[in-house]
Amino acid sequence: MSKFLDKRYSSLAAYVPGEQPQDKQYIKLNTNESPYPPSPETVAAVNKSEAELLRLYPDPDGRVLTKKIADLYGVGTENVILVNGSDDILNFAFMAFGANGRKTYFADITYGFYSVFANLHGSDYKTIPLEDDFTIDYKRFCNLDGAVFIANPNAPTGIALGLDEIEEILKTNPDNVVVVDEAYVDFGTESAVKLVSKYENLLVVQTFSKSRSMAGARLGFAIGNKELIGDLHKLRYSTNPYNINRLTLVAGAAAIDSQSYYTENCKRIEKTREFTTNELEKLGFRVLPSKANFVFAESDTVSGEELYLKLKEMGVLVRHFTSDRIKNFNRITIGTPEQMHILIDKIKEIMEAV
Amino acid sequence: MSKFLDKRYSSLAAYVPGEQPQDKQYIKLNTNESPYPPSPETVAAVNKSEAELLRLYPDPDGRVLTKKIADLYGVGTENVILVNGSDDILNFAFMAFGANGRKTYFADITYGFYSVFANLHGSDYKTIPLEDDFTIDYKRFCNLDGAVFIANPNAPTGIALGLDEIEEILKTNPDNVVVVDEAYVDFGTESAVKLVSKYENLLVVQTFSKSRSMAGARLGFAIGNKELIGDLHKLRYSTNPYNINRLTLVAGAAAIDSQSYYTENCKRIEKTREFTTNELEKLGFRVLPSKANFVFAESDTVSGEELYLKLKEMGVLVRHFTSDRIKNFNRITIGTPEQMHILIDKIKEIMEAV
Repeated sequence: MSKFLDKRYSSLAAYVPGEQPQDKQYIKLNTNESPYPPSPETVAAVNKSEAELLRLYPDPDGRVLTKKIADLYGVGTENVILVNGSDDILNFAFMAFGANGRKTYFADITYGFYSVFANLHGSDYKTIPLEDDFTIDYKRFCNLDGAVFIANPNAPTGIALGLDEIEEILKTNPDNVVVVDEAYVDFGTESAVKLVSKYENLLVVQTFSKSRSMAGARLGFAIGNKELIGDLHKLRYSTNPYNINRLTLVAGAAAIDSQSYYTENCKRIEKTREFTTNELEKLGFRVLPSKANFVFAESDTVSGEELYLKLKEMGVLVRHFTSDRIKNFNRITIGTPEQMHILIDKIKEIMEAV
Repeated sequence: MSKFLDKRYSSLAAYVPGEQPQDKQYIKLNTNESPYPPSPETVAAVNKSEAELLRLYPDPDGRVLTKKIADLYGVGTENVILVNGSDDILNFAFMAFGANGRKTYFADITYGFYSVFANLHGSDYKTIPLEDDFTIDYKRFCNLDGAVFIANPNAPTGIALGLDEIEEILKTNPDNVVVVDEAYVDFGTESAVKLVSKYENLLVVQTFSKSRSMAGARLGFAIGNKELIGDLHKLRYSTNPYNINRLTLVAGAAAIDSQSYYTENCKRIEKTREFTTNELEKLGFRVLPSKANFVFAESDTVSGEELYLKLKEMGVLVRHFTSDRIKNFNRITIGTPEQMHILIDKIKEIMEAV
C-alpha cells in the first residue's frame, strides 16, 4: 500500500476470484463457466470486418443489443442497462443504494463479492444467516430498513427461492431497493423480471457469462424500473460511458438471436447436474438441491479441503471456500458428461485411498 | 432519479461523450478516433478460435499483455495495470487519491471527465486556469496540497508540456500523486514513463484508443511505482477483477507486437495535422499548436457554434464545447488526408457564405 492511498481502503480485502493456474491443463470446474462454446452465430459475429471497426468507439448506449434484450424479456429499452459483466452493475447498485453508512442486507453464505462492495463503499451492512439446511428463510428478508441483495439461485449453495417468496420480499420493502442477482437463473429458476412492472424497488441482474457461454466477453445487464435504471446510467456515465467494447456488443446481439441454442445447452447442463448429484450421493455425499450450473457437496469421509487439494493434484479444479459454515464443502461446476465421469472416477479413487 | 438514489448524487452531472448520431454517415472528426484500422496482426488475433474460447473467463491479471507492455516501456510487470479504457483508471485514481474531501487540482480547460470524477467521489477540487494563450504554466501546478491531474498533451487544446516541466511538478509535490494522462502522447510528446523509477508519486495513464486504433476495444493502462499500482489493483479487484474481455487482451497483445505499424500511422497523422493547421491558418483561423491527433481552432469570421452546426449539416462532425473560454473553438480530429481536404473545402464554403 502506498502512503497516498485513501485510509478508508487500508483494511479493504479485495475479492478473490477462482484460481487460474497456468502450470498445466486442468479440467476446470471451479468458476462456473459453460462447457459449451458460444453459438455458431455468436462466434461468426466476431469477424474480420468487426475487428477492423475497432478503431471506432462503441455505441455507449449499446442500442442494438439493449433493444434485443428488452424484446426478449418483454420490457422497454428504458428498463435495461448493459454492463461490463454483472459485477459492474452490482458495484453500481451498492454505490447508488447502499453506500456511505446506508444499510444493506445479504445472506451470510452468498456471493462473496457483496461484502467486498459493501466494505468498499462504506455500507453499514448486516448478514442474515441461512437456515441449518442452507436454505434462505425469505421472511428474514422482509420488512428491512436498507437495500437487499439476494442471489437467486443462491451461490455457492445453488438453492433457489420461489417467485412468490421474492415477491413477498419486494412487497415488504417498499422503501428499499431489492437486487435479485440472477446470474444462474437460466438453469431452472423462475426469473423476477416479470415483477419489474409491478415493483419500483426491484432490480434484476443477469449475465451472459454462465448460460450464454460468454464469461470471456464480459457482458451483464440489469432490468428494472425506468427511474432505477436511470440512476445506474448516471453512475455509468460518470465513471466509464464506453463500458462495453464493440465485439462484445455484436457477440451479445448474436447470442440473443440464437437463444434456442443456449436454452438447449441449459437443459443439457441440468441433466448432467442430476447425473452428478446422483453419483455423488451414491458415494455418500450430501449434495444441496441445486438450480444452478454447479453443485455444492460435502462428505463425512474426506474433508472439503482435502478433496479439493487431491482433485487439483489429479488435474481437476473445483472451488473450495474457507469460511467456517461451508469449509467442508466444494462447489463443483457442471461440465460435459465426459468431464463429470472423470470427476466421479477421481473422487472414487480419493475416497478408496482414505 | 428514483427516491432510492444516494442524495450525494442528486446534483451530479454525468460526462457527455461526443455525439454518435445514427441519422446518416458522417465524416467523423469529433471523438479523436484513428482514421486507420488496427494492424493486420491485431485484426487477425480476433478470430474464430478466440471467439470459441469466450466461454472461459479472461485472465484477470492479463499476464501476457501486461508483460508485453512492461517490456515495451522498459518497466516491470508490477509497474503496469490494465483497464477497461483509460477512463477506468482515472476513476480509480480519483477514488484512491482524491476522494471524500481530499484535495485535487486540474486545469480549468482540460479533459472534461476530471470534474465529473471529482464530483462523483466528493473531491475538494480546484481548477487552475490556463494562461491567455491556453498554455499551462507548470509553476501553478508546483507545491500543491492534493493530487494533481494533468493531461499531456492537454485536451482539447493539444498543447504539450516538456518533460522537464513535468519533472518539476513531480519534484515539488512529493506528498501528492501526480497523474499524467498521456492519451495523446504518441503524436509527438515525450512520455513521463521514464520518470516512473525516480518518482513514487507518478502515475502515467495511456490508452490504445487513439494511436493504436482500438477505441472500440476499450483498453487502457497505467504505469507507476509498484505501491501505487498495487493500490489501484486493490480497487480493481474490489469492483471488477475480470475488467478486460478476452478478445481485447489478445488484440492488445498483437498490437504491441506490431508497434511499427502504429508508429508509422502516428507519423502520417502528424503530417496531416501540419497540413490541416496550415490550411486553417490560410483561412484566417487561429490554431493552437497541437501535439495530439486533433487541432483546436477558432475564427473571427464564423463562431464556433455556427461552424460546428454548418459542418454537421454538411456531413462533417467536429466537437464543439460550450464553456465560456473555448466556445468560439472547435476540436477537429485529424482524419485521412482525403477527409481533411473535404473538411477544408466545406469550411471554405461556409466562410464564403458568411
